[in-house]
Amino acid sequence: MKTQDIQQSFSRMQNKIIREFIILDNSSKKKTKKWKHHTGGGGLSCEIIGMNYIEKAAVNFSSITGNKLPESALEKTGLKGLKNFRATGVSVIIHPINPKVPCAHMNIRFFEANINKKDVWWFGGGFDLTPYFINQKDIYFWKNSAKNLCERYDKSFYKKFSESCNDYFYIPHRNEPRGIGGIFFDQLNSHSFSFCMDFTLDCAETFIDSYSYLFRKKAKLKYSEKEKAFQLYRRGRYVEFNLLYDRGTLFGLQSGGRPESILMSMPPLVAWNSKYDFKILEKKLLKMFNLARK
Amino acid sequence: MKTQDIQQSFSRMQNKIIREFIILDNSSKKKTKKWKHHTGGGGLSCEIIGMNYIEKAAVNFSSITGNKLPESALEKTGLKGLKNFRATGVSVIIHPINPKVPCAHMNIRFFEANINKKDVWWFGGGFDLTPYFINQKDIYFWKNSAKNLCERYDKSFYKKFSESCNDYFYIPHRNEPRGIGGIFFDQLNSHSFSFCMDFTLDCAETFIDSYSYLFRKKAKLKYSEKEKAFQLYRRGRYVEFNLLYDRGTLFGLQSGGRPESILMSMPPLVAWNSKYDFKILEKKLLKMFNLARK
Repeated sequence: MKTQDIQQSFSRMQNKIIREFIILDNSSKKKTKKWKHHTGGGGLSCEIIGMNYIEKAAVNFSSITGNKLPESALEKTGLKGLKNFRATGVSVIIHPINPKVPCAHMNIRFFEANINKKDVWWFGGGFDLTPYFINQKDIYFWKNSAKNLCERYDKSFYKKFSESCNDYFYIPHRNEPRGIGGIFFDQLNSHSFSFCMDFTLDCAETFIDSYSYLFRKKAKLKYSEKEKAFQLYRRGRYVEFNLLYDRGTLFGLQSGGRPESILMSMPPLVAWNSKYDFKILEKKLLKMFNLARK
Repeated sequence: MKTQDIQQSFSRMQNKIIREFIILDNSSKKKTKKWKHHTGGGGLSCEIIGMNYIEKAAVNFSSITGNKLPESALEKTGLKGLKNFRATGVSVIIHPINPKVPCAHMNIRFFEANINKKDVWWFGGGFDLTPYFINQKDIYFWKNSAKNLCERYDKSFYKKFSESCNDYFYIPHRNEPRGIGGIFFDQLNSHSFSFCMDFTLDCAETFIDSYSYLFRKKAKLKYSEKEKAFQLYRRGRYVEFNLLYDRGTLFGLQSGGRPESILMSMPPLVAWNSKYDFKILEKKLLKMFNLARK
């Protein structure tokens, strides 16, 4: 029962986000791919590429089943003897063409398993923003939408989940946050199933609304060649984070997921070098990242 | 005594490779940076960027000391209680502009430490080639130089070290080799110190000679926009390997090395998407990669 509800709601959410992205850039073409997982279940990946505003977006649904969990998933649970799990999720990433428009990520997931003949389940999810240029007003807007969402459900959520987000989206070897944060939650089962499910789905809705608002506001701003180059260079940090630290990526690859779907989050074009000097732009950006954590 | 010899020879080798690369592309500019490691020692990084043939090369020397080893280094040694280590190495990566010229990697390293008041040391190193376009003749040439090098030292080396190279430079989630291989050796102390040192330095010399030969032969070949795009796309595999699997990268980042130096191996420009369809080019390339493993 739970499983079916979740799959339907998550799948509907995937379609809604795809539709919204195509409205944001009506020149977009989508490329979908249905795939099966070797241990059971499968997914539907959707890549969106636009000519005007969306350089690449990925909106992926998956629901896989299995018997043994990969290390990356067990690491933090402290649960051993887990059996017959199903992990269902929608994960979204968008890399806009215009460097003034932030890159964003959203993910919702549901996990259910059997441990010593007892059923366990939990929800996880969150969204975060990785801008290349940002001002205080937009930071406040982004953070505030996340806060409002949380407060509609539980007064204790925002502090916990925004801190988790800051902790999670951090690049230790660069000693830098990945972006300005948002919320991140995992193993949420502290309330009823339907409460947690509503919150999780609302998390996706809030993401669509607040991201679309920022996108529309900025997608037509003028930008220079140097500003575009700065975006390509900063995308390198994104790749470093995803391949070195992201549990979702490692979970996917270790559990034998479809690499093309898992790595669909990779930016379309990335530069680790540039003819420009980005010291000042970078200092300004990192100042904003650090301000956003306060 | 050993330490000083190694540092001098490795540092001389770094300079030699830098000179050779600048001869390969005399429009090259080098950018060097001396750095210190927080636990002791340091390094000299050199980035080379050319206008005509070398899109980016990195020729880095480092010699760091410390008390505790990061996980990535201990994993395969089976040695516990290691103290006061010094790791000295030269690592080289070159990303040519022309997609017909292969990307190449070379590394030599010396490790010394104290275990239960006993000194231990070993050498490591190797080179491998990551082409985007390659024919059988060039594969044979590359493999044969490696073979000749090994056979001058020990008849058993080539089989062992070329197999290690194939095993090491493999991308499990893509089920693909990283390139056509070469040699890779680690924990070499089966012969005298000077024998192992000679072999290791000769490994670097062989790399310079055979890579320069291929580079000169191909650097002026014509290429299409699609062929360049294929190079950028295949460089994505290189990034995936380095950040997900490369022990050197993980060792460096985990031991608090300078990220700019460690990640200097990243390609200058990488694409995970393209307007072109690379199916046929990729099939041809992977056929060559697999042929090279036989």
